[in-house]
Amino acid sequence: MKAYVYVTLKVSVLDPQGQTIQNALRKMRFTGIESVRQGKYFVLTLAEGLTAEAARAEVEQVAKDVLTNPVIEDFTYRIEE
Amino acid sequence: MKAYVYVTLKVSVLDPQGQTIQNALRKMRFTGIESVRQGKYFVLTLAEGLTAEAARAEVEQVAKDVLTNPVIEDFTYRIEE
Repeated sequence: MKAYVYVTLKVSVLDPQGQTIQNALRKMRFTGIESVRQGKYFVLTLAEGLTAEAARAEVEQVAKDVLTNPVIEDFTYRIEE
Repeated sequence: MKAYVYVTLKVSVLDPQGQTIQNALRKMRFTGIESVRQGKYFVLTLAEGLTAEAARAEVEQVAKDVLTNPVIEDFTYRIEE
């Protein structure tokens, strides 16, 4: 079982890294891209024999306590068999 | 229209950052997580009026030329209306 955790800056938080990429894209004439936000992405391989419910609880806890800074970041996740 | 681009290290490439997170999780008694790989995640806001095909071409080019280092990274993307 694998879990995919996506961490993004909250909408209210400035993203200078994304802004820099966006400026570079504009200079490179990629005119179809209006804005860029960068986030983090984690692939967690889960232990065999975890129930779906235990997996969800564990991934949620890890995402909340370890992978995300709750002051400035939000996360979403999905679990795949 | 938004595009989501996921960049991960190729499977054959070591991921010390993911390894460090994994070690930390083990010490914190998150026993359900067997391995962690870290990647990057980009949210691109696309210009109004792009056709689906143009959007796909543009996002693919940006992902390939700017967001990914093809020597060590792979990418996937999805586009959402």
